[in-house]
Amino acid sequence: MVSSTYKTGLQLRSTVKAEGVLELSLLSVPTPEPRADEVVVRVEATPLNPSDLGLLLAGADPNAFKSALGADGPVVAAAVPPEMMRSLGARLGDSLPVGNEGAGVVVAAGTNAQAMIGKTVSVIGGAMYSQYRCVAAAQCLPLPEGTTPADGASWFVNPMTALGMVETMKREGHTALVHTAAASNLGQMLQKVCLKDEVSLVNIVRKPEQAALLRELGATYVCDSSSASFMEDLIEAVSTTSATIAFDAIGGGKLAGQILTAMEIAASRKAGAYSRYGSSTPKQVYIYGNLDRSPTVLNRSFGMAWGVGGWLLTPFLQKAGGETIERMRTRVAGELKTTFASQYARRISLSEALQPEIIAVYGKQATGEKYLITPNA
Amino acid sequence: MVSSTYKTGLQLRSTVKAEGVLELSLLSVPTPEPRADEVVVRVEATPLNPSDLGLLLAGADPNAFKSALGADGPVVAAAVPPEMMRSLGARLGDSLPVGNEGAGVVVAAGTNAQAMIGKTVSVIGGAMYSQYRCVAAAQCLPLPEGTTPADGASWFVNPMTALGMVETMKREGHTALVHTAAASNLGQMLQKVCLKDEVSLVNIVRKPEQAALLRELGATYVCDSSSASFMEDLIEAVSTTSATIAFDAIGGGKLAGQILTAMEIAASRKAGAYSRYGSSTPKQVYIYGNLDRSPTVLNRSFGMAWGVGGWLLTPFLQKAGGETIERMRTRVAGELKTTFASQYARRISLSEALQPEIIAVYGKQATGEKYLITPNA
Repeated sequence: MVSSTYKTGLQLRSTVKAEGVLELSLLSVPTPEPRADEVVVRVEATPLNPSDLGLLLAGADPNAFKSALGADGPVVAAAVPPEMMRSLGARLGDSLPVGNEGAGVVVAAGTNAQAMIGKTVSVIGGAMYSQYRCVAAAQCLPLPEGTTPADGASWFVNPMTALGMVETMKREGHTALVHTAAASNLGQMLQKVCLKDEVSLVNIVRKPEQAALLRELGATYVCDSSSASFMEDLIEAVSTTSATIAFDAIGGGKLAGQILTAMEIAASRKAGAYSRYGSSTPKQVYIYGNLDRSPTVLNRSFGMAWGVGGWLLTPFLQKAGGETIERMRTRVAGELKTTFASQYARRISLSEALQPEIIAVYGKQATGEKYLITPNA
Repeated sequence: MVSSTYKTGLQLRSTVKAEGVLELSLLSVPTPEPRADEVVVRVEATPLNPSDLGLLLAGADPNAFKSALGADGPVVAAAVPPEMMRSLGARLGDSLPVGNEGAGVVVAAGTNAQAMIGKTVSVIGGAMYSQYRCVAAAQCLPLPEGTTPADGASWFVNPMTALGMVETMKREGHTALVHTAAASNLGQMLQKVCLKDEVSLVNIVRKPEQAALLRELGATYVCDSSSASFMEDLIEAVSTTSATIAFDAIGGGKLAGQILTAMEIAASRKAGAYSRYGSSTPKQVYIYGNLDRSPTVLNRSFGMAWGVGGWLLTPFLQKAGGETIERMRTRVAGELKTTFASQYARRISLSEALQPEIIAVYGKQATGEKYLITPNA
């Protein structure tokens, strides 16, 4: 039942204008004819990941969107904070498609990819907030029998990030890790991976109900930063696990420094003798998210053997190389409905993704409020 | 003219007491008889480096010292800030000797080291704020003819750090570097090394007269953080040199983040196309000093390819290995009176090092206020 309606489709666009306004719009765009090694995918499910929201909202306040009339029809718009504009120079005026990943059904294919027609596939490759996407067949991961596009929509970013964190931990010589905003979809996957792989994981959450959720998954170490005993709990968990690397989705505030301080206290307890420069145990926090946009504040009460830095999936994969990536992809495909299952609070259409009251919810990036776009529902 | 008075000598000690008080005292200690491969050095010159002051003053305010009477005679004492006490647990109550490096004359030697008697040597090995030190002959660097102990006193920490910074830059794939508090003795050495080695160096200073001092040495890039055009000057210098690594002696405040921001703007100018995650150019700031003890504040307006971390000479040398260390030592010995010459504002005795008004000066660690202790003058 392949239709020819794929020839044009709606596509979501994000544009930052020179005057400091972000506009989101829906365009009707022609779908390219697939070349020999390409396929056209009818996109059925594509998640709103934090990594998409950076490009989509360009730092605008999710509560500030208002409907307006753009040059090509209705749009929704909000002001971009002046301090963000400096880093957005290279995208000014460009109408950018959005959406890192998703899943759907192959509705057309080039001569070399005919066998894929009708298959349900996951795709990585940008511009997924579209009704149709023409992509290389190699960018598609055919999904096992009985797997829906919704099951396979978040197959890449979160699963590969969770596996990438454990891989980074091992490559850099650590044996246990800390994760923040740990009740997120990604955090739940990471906990399941760590249970399977017998790696100790210290989860940091911000609410008691998030702690409960992780404990139900089997988490041993959960520290609630809203608790009065947070620092003591964290020191205890980091001491017990010997975790010396952390992945932090929060970014702003004191948390990265608190994690390093807990690691340093744990290391000093084991070290014995006084060193004026603190312990010699290397301690690392990688910031991979930006949930708190305020500055990172480090009081440096953690000796001299420390590092804080940015971490991104793509450069990690480039360093890790083809064999590692293939091993990770295969694992994800096999555990898509278990370890790497995602939860969505709501499914929305492309036009709902442009409604101010809906942006106000998914733009918060709150745990348990993840949305899935279904462009062809 | 070797005397036997070396059998006992004065030694400076630093003690943090459980009640939060730091005491500095002078003890008369016996000098160990040198074993076969050891020598006794009469210490003639030993510098007060920032790296010594951390151990010596334990974070106490240099203006707060008062003379007092300790258990074993007169002492000088000051309160340790409560927030420092947590990290000082492992030294509580211990009477610690101080002083990383220095130079003097060999006055006694074990059977295998007799040839060293009478020689002027530089020493690394702690407890140099003493009149006599018994150390392994291998810890001594015999100084060339015509080199005084004062010439050779700062032979290790600053010269090896300056060379270690350039070495780290190369090992980590960078081609130019940024240095802060750049008019220090160390900074002047680094500028001289970079001129000799044709490496571009961006110097950051805090006063116009410090900028002038560096320009007299031949510096091309000097940015004064007290100038209104500082950020623009820094971006320009970092763009021209393509510096992507910095060594920061300040530690606190916004400077580390400003350097990363300048590097990111420079990298984006070259990159062309917009990337939502910023440039892919790795940018690193190593904090090796603590001149500003306030928290490090990073606004993270520099993409995701960044790192900030501690840097120390000893772990660097351990990683670099014996061959590199030997190459560095040989270079230092050959350029002690040129590239690696140190300037001291004043020479003081061990007992002067314990006078409150003198502590108030050297404790500031101000550029141009470096003191040299002459324990046997």
